[in-house]
Amino acid sequence: MRLLLTLQYLGTRYAGWQMQANAVGIQSVVEEVLARMYGAPIRIEGAGRTDSGVHALAQRAHYDAPFAIPLRGLTRGMNDLLPHDIRITNVEEVADDFHCRFASKSKTYAYQIWNAEVMDVFRWETHAHVAQKLDAQRMHEAAQTLQGTQDFKRFTVIEPEVSSTVRTIEHISVLSPQSSVLMIRVTADGFLRFMVRRIAGSLIELGRGKVDAVTALAEARWTAPAKGLVLEEIRY
Amino acid sequence: MRLLLTLQYLGTRYAGWQMQANAVGIQSVVEEVLARMYGAPIRIEGAGRTDSGVHALAQRAHYDAPFAIPLRGLTRGMNDLLPHDIRITNVEEVADDFHCRFASKSKTYAYQIWNAEVMDVFRWETHAHVAQKLDAQRMHEAAQTLQGTQDFKRFTVIEPEVSSTVRTIEHISVLSPQSSVLMIRVTADGFLRFMVRRIAGSLIELGRGKVDAVTALAEARWTAPAKGLVLEEIRY
Repeated sequence: MRLLLTLQYLGTRYAGWQMQANAVGIQSVVEEVLARMYGAPIRIEGAGRTDSGVHALAQRAHYDAPFAIPLRGLTRGMNDLLPHDIRITNVEEVADDFHCRFASKSKTYAYQIWNAEVMDVFRWETHAHVAQKLDAQRMHEAAQTLQGTQDFKRFTVIEPEVSSTVRTIEHISVLSPQSSVLMIRVTADGFLRFMVRRIAGSLIELGRGKVDAVTALAEARWTAPAKGLVLEEIRY
Repeated sequence: MRLLLTLQYLGTRYAGWQMQANAVGIQSVVEEVLARMYGAPIRIEGAGRTDSGVHALAQRAHYDAPFAIPLRGLTRGMNDLLPHDIRITNVEEVADDFHCRFASKSKTYAYQIWNAEVMDVFRWETHAHVAQKLDAQRMHEAAQTLQGTQDFKRFTVIEPEVSSTVRTIEHISVLSPQSSVLMIRVTADGFLRFMVRRIAGSLIELGRGKVDAVTALAEARWTAPAKGLVLEEIRY
């Protein structure tokens, strides 16, 4: 029986979804808790490999359960055992051949910026701080040129296992949902490593008014810090 | 020259505004930073003595500066030296006889509740978790009986230095600003120790529907956890 988990986490204390040499990954923390629930080792497969410091509002992961546990009890039991910065928000049964990464139609990431001279203490973990006033309208307009199917090679790093750097951005926006907050939201069929952080870095740079939009997005040599990034949604 | 600071902080790591036997107080962290700025010991006076774990959006504190430093540079310098969970959001000059505690006309505290079965990881530090669905309307109506000038003795602990337990609540409300969030907001001319947390605890109890409003507010024997409490504003 294959189960699909929806997870929320604060990435601050972790090496990212996957473990690194000397740091714990979110995946292994969840696997350890599942091993305690089932009394047997469980291997989970995540939908998105978030980097160190990146958060998730709704990450997905699937695994094959060795036996049935009522889903509500499973959710409760896992949340009792998990640390406060990882929560299971949903568990559902899926088809045995469902794969949470390959089946995903699109993902949405949000990049959160606190744009005021003094950083907000309540957002230190989840928002990047930019003291200088940014021109959100200019950022939003420039971002529209990234929409559609394009080669996003300049927004990533060379990774041998990635065969193509062409992706389709379905929607991208730069909005200010409240005073001093800027939110860059990107929905695409898939993302390359560092893609959103490099798009955010370039948009921030042109938002400062020190470089023009064409240059900023062509050079793409700024990477915004991990802590502002949130995996918001994965659609199937 | 007397200066008035406006401070924002996350109370999680601190013993409260004032230090305790084995834990650091926010006051002493700020005093240490001021000592470095001025090269001399500085003693500050806070407007509200927030308890361990309680946060502030706009705490106030005053001190006598031994010499003038441009206020913008002072703010920046302090924020460079302070830890990420304490920020100075404003510094202004006040009259030499101004006292931030005695001069305050009213204070507003907010008590924040995450009211859903699974706790939100992004709010673990700033919201109390109540899994059972609360009746906000019932809580709001019952809270109105606390408005006005009353003896709030049952909502506090005996403290020999407090001569009167009569206070005036000018405004109290229980609202849901967004899905799964409940916010209890209280404005009064002054607050007794644990007063908001005990009011919140009693309102939560009656919001669960297990005790009637009169009993809950008469007994006042529930204290909501510190982490949900935020000192929002002090008016002069």
